[in-house]
Amino acid sequence: MQNDRSFRPRIPPFDLVLFGGTGDLSLRKVLPAMLRRDIDGQLDPATRILACSLDHHDAVAYRALVGAALEGVRDEVCATTEQWDRFLARLSHDHVDATAPDGARGFAEALHAHPDRVRVFYLATSPSLYGTISQALAQLGLVTPDSRVVLEKPLGRDLPTSKAIHDAVAAVFHEDQVYRMDHYLGKETVQNLMALRFANALFEPMWNATYVDHVQITVAESLGIGHRAAYYDRFGAVRDMLQNHLLQLVCLLAMEPPGVFDAASVRAKKLEVLRALRPKGPDDVLRDCVFGQYGPGAIGGDRVAGYLDEPGVADESHTETFVAARVFVDTWRWAGVPFYLRTGKRLEHRASEIVVRFKAVPHVIFPDQAHQVVANQLVLRLQPLEGIKLVLMTKTPGPGGIRLRPAALNLGYAETFKTPLPDAYERLLLDTAKGNQTLFMGRDEVEAAWSWVDPILQAWEGSDRPPIRYAAGTWGPSAAYGLIERDGRSWVEPGETFG
Amino acid sequence: MQNDRSFRPRIPPFDLVLFGGTGDLSLRKVLPAMLRRDIDGQLDPATRILACSLDHHDAVAYRALVGAALEGVRDEVCATTEQWDRFLARLSHDHVDATAPDGARGFAEALHAHPDRVRVFYLATSPSLYGTISQALAQLGLVTPDSRVVLEKPLGRDLPTSKAIHDAVAAVFHEDQVYRMDHYLGKETVQNLMALRFANALFEPMWNATYVDHVQITVAESLGIGHRAAYYDRFGAVRDMLQNHLLQLVCLLAMEPPGVFDAASVRAKKLEVLRALRPKGPDDVLRDCVFGQYGPGAIGGDRVAGYLDEPGVADESHTETFVAARVFVDTWRWAGVPFYLRTGKRLEHRASEIVVRFKAVPHVIFPDQAHQVVANQLVLRLQPLEGIKLVLMTKTPGPGGIRLRPAALNLGYAETFKTPLPDAYERLLLDTAKGNQTLFMGRDEVEAAWSWVDPILQAWEGSDRPPIRYAAGTWGPSAAYGLIERDGRSWVEPGETFG
Repeated sequence: MQNDRSFRPRIPPFDLVLFGGTGDLSLRKVLPAMLRRDIDGQLDPATRILACSLDHHDAVAYRALVGAALEGVRDEVCATTEQWDRFLARLSHDHVDATAPDGARGFAEALHAHPDRVRVFYLATSPSLYGTISQALAQLGLVTPDSRVVLEKPLGRDLPTSKAIHDAVAAVFHEDQVYRMDHYLGKETVQNLMALRFANALFEPMWNATYVDHVQITVAESLGIGHRAAYYDRFGAVRDMLQNHLLQLVCLLAMEPPGVFDAASVRAKKLEVLRALRPKGPDDVLRDCVFGQYGPGAIGGDRVAGYLDEPGVADESHTETFVAARVFVDTWRWAGVPFYLRTGKRLEHRASEIVVRFKAVPHVIFPDQAHQVVANQLVLRLQPLEGIKLVLMTKTPGPGGIRLRPAALNLGYAETFKTPLPDAYERLLLDTAKGNQTLFMGRDEVEAAWSWVDPILQAWEGSDRPPIRYAAGTWGPSAAYGLIERDGRSWVEPGETFG
Repeated sequence: MQNDRSFRPRIPPFDLVLFGGTGDLSLRKVLPAMLRRDIDGQLDPATRILACSLDHHDAVAYRALVGAALEGVRDEVCATTEQWDRFLARLSHDHVDATAPDGARGFAEALHAHPDRVRVFYLATSPSLYGTISQALAQLGLVTPDSRVVLEKPLGRDLPTSKAIHDAVAAVFHEDQVYRMDHYLGKETVQNLMALRFANALFEPMWNATYVDHVQITVAESLGIGHRAAYYDRFGAVRDMLQNHLLQLVCLLAMEPPGVFDAASVRAKKLEVLRALRPKGPDDVLRDCVFGQYGPGAIGGDRVAGYLDEPGVADESHTETFVAARVFVDTWRWAGVPFYLRTGKRLEHRASEIVVRFKAVPHVIFPDQAHQVVANQLVLRLQPLEGIKLVLMTKTPGPGGIRLRPAALNLGYAETFKTPLPDAYERLLLDTAKGNQTLFMGRDEVEAAWSWVDPILQAWEGSDRPPIRYAAGTWGPSAAYGLIERDGRSWVEPGETFG
């Protein structure tokens, strides 16, 4: 199909204020997403991108810096130099020190020039600055009713630190102005999960403990921690991934149907799930969770260092780079249905998949086929290539009676729809400009997630046990297999059901 | 995938005795099916095909006749001359007059030479001869415990004539030796319907009045009656198609799960459906059935004659060449769910499709999308190309919020499985040799179908109304649209959901 422009309306002019504008997140994610939306015609000619940082670039120097960083994207999406120049012309840069806002009067002037415009304050900075920056914006008189602030993880290390961040931001911004980014929620497949569940009569009646055997979520990264030891060694996989991305996916899978697909209703339903997560006492943690840390190994044929050898990691660090957990959602709908979650770094390859495994047929009527019948499963792949497959049993074609084999009904986007998929950041950035919070986490969600995660972290960190070593390039410690196999189930390795 | 020979085992030697061996059915269906199974290695070298008819061919002349008739199939499937010669060598021909069996001693000798072999007596003759031939076989002492008889439709014009045929055959053959052919039951898609329903936990819980809105079955032919007026003008669409093929499809769609997929269990479950068909009184027939007859028109750009102008059709014939009916299966499972059936000749194109339409979602949560949401449907296409599609609502990819559109999850065999599909006759012929009656109609099924059809025919023929004229090349009389549209539903035109 052709891109249908009528469905991608131009957004009224807004000002994107990008704190940390010279940082990695801005250059790798935020600006490329804006460029793509610009090329697609969704940015008004008057829309501006006001970057700021502690650097002293002027607009010319900043545009040169962005030009170098975005070269690949530019070559991919820009058909003409005019398109690229138009994008660059939106960019400006100011030196802004949030601890000394008086020095940022020039920056403030630029914004004051359009007092009625939507302002999106994107805080691509350390969360420790969220409060300070909010305060500075208030002091400069920049926070209008049409202002929004975008926060990136980590939103705290635990419930108290999370509350502190949110309190500081809440002193300036009302909750309905706060956009907490979880880019997993912006993924096409995750959106499509909502469509599958709530626009089809076929799934919802089966979407419960009567018919679902269990759910698996795997979020696997092949990368190590790179140069982020200063952050990662203090956080680890539970805080970095489980508390936010994986629990958010659990919410979307497990939530009751909202009355309407809007921020208030969806968040309320997600919150119910987070509050229904069965709490884990210390013994539960030891039984239901596996914590791992990668040792040296090989990925794609290249030798890679173990976590303890990564630059900046503390000697004998106990930080987990892998976690697997068996989780229950204590509601009528999900009574007794385990959700098996796992995520880690330096795993065999990068892949995120959700598997909803239905129960087996109660009785096999086909002679000699009992061992052939595999339970139905719905597989949602979030990366590397997004797609959805429904695995059904079908008859093997041929004249020799009914012999069964699984076949996957494929809803891979690339084949089904000829439109390239937008990046999650593109969708979410536009949502901030449009004022749609549906795909962002509410404060109470983040806090409910911490409330559930904190006792796990306390039990784990309090035990002072070392994480289980796993070789880089594997799927994690063998104990993670034991976790699911002692229930008579097994992990579906990512990619297994896709070609 | 490669053909997997282990799943297509060689059948022990058997004798196929082909009455009407020089006729159209033998040359177009039975012998090509045997050739294909031969090429595929399923026929033992000793397996024979003993054709007989009122003609006086010897084996040489018969092989020449078959050679000419099967030229196209031969070129398609035979890689070597040896393969073709091996097949021809199986063939013999005898002049057999069933009314004077004493003249067939030579033919009998050939069979007596292998007294312990399975014998498949395939009666590709007029049904009026089934009793006579059975009697002749008995007189010649040819009916062994391992003998089977294959009957083709029409199995009567009504219940009494059907009973008469079956009584005559039953005087010689036990019911478990009688194979009543309905080639629709041998179709891959129909088999796969069984696999989908009973090997997947996902469909059966939805397969009832709570979730299914209605079912449609269309069996459309583009051909007219050709030179078959002598038969067709006495039978018409109700007897020729509705009583057998369409009701058998209703059975497979509507039946309860059998305990095991074997002849006794499947037939018992199908019989329950036939007995649960809501009887139609004369008023019901007028309201729930539409009878049509094709007039002149055009198909694929060529002008074609109307039924009344076909050679051999009676002046002012009231024979219906089209029937549409709204049918109910009065069981707990199907209470209130209409099955809309239609079949006809000289329709727009040849196509057989089954549509299981599920109910709409009870509530649309996505803003502005209520009019976009189409109810789920499972479409099973039997011809021209077999395939199965599941039509689901999905999100239109793109950054502009959740906009829904239907997408078809495709289980077309050609793409999914690389094996060419066997013809229904190939499967069913081998089943007769193997002694598997599962895909053949039981006598009580045929009689239950007549019991339901007879009052419809009596009401229709008793009314002495002419059928409604429809132009050849259309989808039948507009009254057939009224039949379904007054229920607020509409026909899914064949091919509509397939590419």
